[in-house]
Amino acid sequence: MAKRDLLAHPIEWVKGKGSNSNIAVSSRIRLARNLSDFPFTHRCDHEKLYAIVDQVKQVISDSDLLKDSDVVEMDALDSLSRWVLVEKHLISPPFAGDGPGRLVIVDSKGVISIMVNEEDHLRIQVILAGLELNEVWRIAKKVEMMFEKLGYAFDSDFGYLAACPTNVGTGMRASVMVHIPALEMSKQITTLINECNRIGLTVRGTYGEGSDVLGSLYQISNQITLGLGEEELIDKVASAVRQIVTEEERARAVMKRKLDSSLDDRLWRAFGVMRYCRNISTREALELISLIKMGSDMEITPKLSVEDWNNLVLGVQPNHVQLYAGKELTPDERDVYRAAFLRERLKSIEPK
Amino acid sequence: MAKRDLLAHPIEWVKGKGSNSNIAVSSRIRLARNLSDFPFTHRCDHEKLYAIVDQVKQVISDSDLLKDSDVVEMDALDSLSRWVLVEKHLISPPFAGDGPGRLVIVDSKGVISIMVNEEDHLRIQVILAGLELNEVWRIAKKVEMMFEKLGYAFDSDFGYLAACPTNVGTGMRASVMVHIPALEMSKQITTLINECNRIGLTVRGTYGEGSDVLGSLYQISNQITLGLGEEELIDKVASAVRQIVTEEERARAVMKRKLDSSLDDRLWRAFGVMRYCRNISTREALELISLIKMGSDMEITPKLSVEDWNNLVLGVQPNHVQLYAGKELTPDERDVYRAAFLRERLKSIEPK
Repeated sequence: MAKRDLLAHPIEWVKGKGSNSNIAVSSRIRLARNLSDFPFTHRCDHEKLYAIVDQVKQVISDSDLLKDSDVVEMDALDSLSRWVLVEKHLISPPFAGDGPGRLVIVDSKGVISIMVNEEDHLRIQVILAGLELNEVWRIAKKVEMMFEKLGYAFDSDFGYLAACPTNVGTGMRASVMVHIPALEMSKQITTLINECNRIGLTVRGTYGEGSDVLGSLYQISNQITLGLGEEELIDKVASAVRQIVTEEERARAVMKRKLDSSLDDRLWRAFGVMRYCRNISTREALELISLIKMGSDMEITPKLSVEDWNNLVLGVQPNHVQLYAGKELTPDERDVYRAAFLRERLKSIEPK
Repeated sequence: MAKRDLLAHPIEWVKGKGSNSNIAVSSRIRLARNLSDFPFTHRCDHEKLYAIVDQVKQVISDSDLLKDSDVVEMDALDSLSRWVLVEKHLISPPFAGDGPGRLVIVDSKGVISIMVNEEDHLRIQVILAGLELNEVWRIAKKVEMMFEKLGYAFDSDFGYLAACPTNVGTGMRASVMVHIPALEMSKQITTLINECNRIGLTVRGTYGEGSDVLGSLYQISNQITLGLGEEELIDKVASAVRQIVTEEERARAVMKRKLDSSLDDRLWRAFGVMRYCRNISTREALELISLIKMGSDMEITPKLSVEDWNNLVLGVQPNHVQLYAGKELTPDERDVYRAAFLRERLKSIEPK
């Protein structure tokens, strides 16, 4: 399989078909599993890593669920391609580095992705658009059961074992990406973060732990994986997100009711700058994209579909910009090509 | 004559037909004259002021040059209309206030305007586009000679007498408005001001003494009116302006040669903001207009003719904005209507 195929792979969540996908961009569940016959990844030699890879490949070729998947050795991808996969949320940032015996599997719809020999032997990930954690969980369980025949490392006291103690137990992280510009503008974000922490949830940036919040995109996820069942954890995240969605909608309604020309101006200037700029950073681009999405939702600036929005957010990422340019670029050159990408896309949603 | 006629009066300089009118926007000469039969304006009672008005009107109705002029009593104009005339450079800011026996005369082409009973009995002003001080002087002399029959206050030692000592002598101020964004950006403006001062010239803001510099528009004029002949003063101003035009062109050429994406970006963003903003101050509007004019001259942003540019500069002034809205506005409302005016005008120069 050529690397271009994987880069052009359809990604289901990008289409935006899910409940509340205007605000709850995507729901994701990640399960960490290890095989009891092998030491943890960082203690495996090459031979063992490839043995794991072979076992996983065997399961996939025997399965109905993943038989049309793309199965790609990470070593076969250049650095740009790997980072594009990170930006698409198909693999984690550490997985984009170098290392032997690592595999990524993406199903034909771009719903399921599996990293083999990341921190754990298996990292099963399922993403859908909208607040759809239950459906995501249903699929994740199916994938998890498929690999069960390889023998998971499990302890009757602790649950599933994992390379990092924070993942021991369910090995699950359930997270929802939310777009909450109105809560950010109205300074309610600090309260929200504190509330989430109080009930055992974490609020992170766009690309997970330690990453910046860009374009008002926040990830809400469970902090702990031990002591509660999967369904309980999922319910906790889902119910927090439902409340955040309601609060964001309320904050937007308040803004819309007392719409002053400074907000109107801010939203429209964002549109004008994106339409004509010649040089723009990732951070500024994501801020402006956030504003025009909010403006579209509030029926102030031109209609921007969830799919077009998701494609803009992905398209301005540093590695997607290089994909757009068709070549490697310096950071300064990226800012120029990013502007060209935005101008081209914005043209199609320009008001008459 | 209805006040609307004067507000909609053609203004010759706005059309931009004159040499170097891309940079040397307009050339203006103002002559201060007083009638020897009357005390200076501030010492005239109502009767004397109206006597002067009557004598001036008589000269006009007898003349060929001004027979199609609009002759308007300032008292007949509301405050908005007076300030629109200030913004058009037809009258001075002090003349827009209240006071009896004041008259403004504007010839049919909008080249000549005469204020009667401003600081001096007669303030004769002639404006043309471009660097055209010689032609402006030719016309100003004709108008001045026309009123000579009323008997000018003249002293064989001092020359023409004026209410303010700084105007005694020739009673002349020759000024040229220049648009020099590149000299401003490249920080050469301080040197330029010092150089002008050294040779007896003054550099002022857009609306004369004490006014701010807005949109990179500077007025270059003679500081003294005594001790040199009119032609000498005019030559001095004209030769300084010729040099400034050359330097501005050189600064733009340097910028164009090493055009980096940050200048490109700045010029295009100015276009984008003007095209889509919903709220904008006079100061910001003039800055953006200056940038897109420079961008047009440098063949970077869409073509903006000198006439369209002059109309933008006039149109964003506070009183022109109210004229555009067709009603009096608060300062906040003006910012909203100014944005609407810019959006409407920019639409027509949008790139395909």
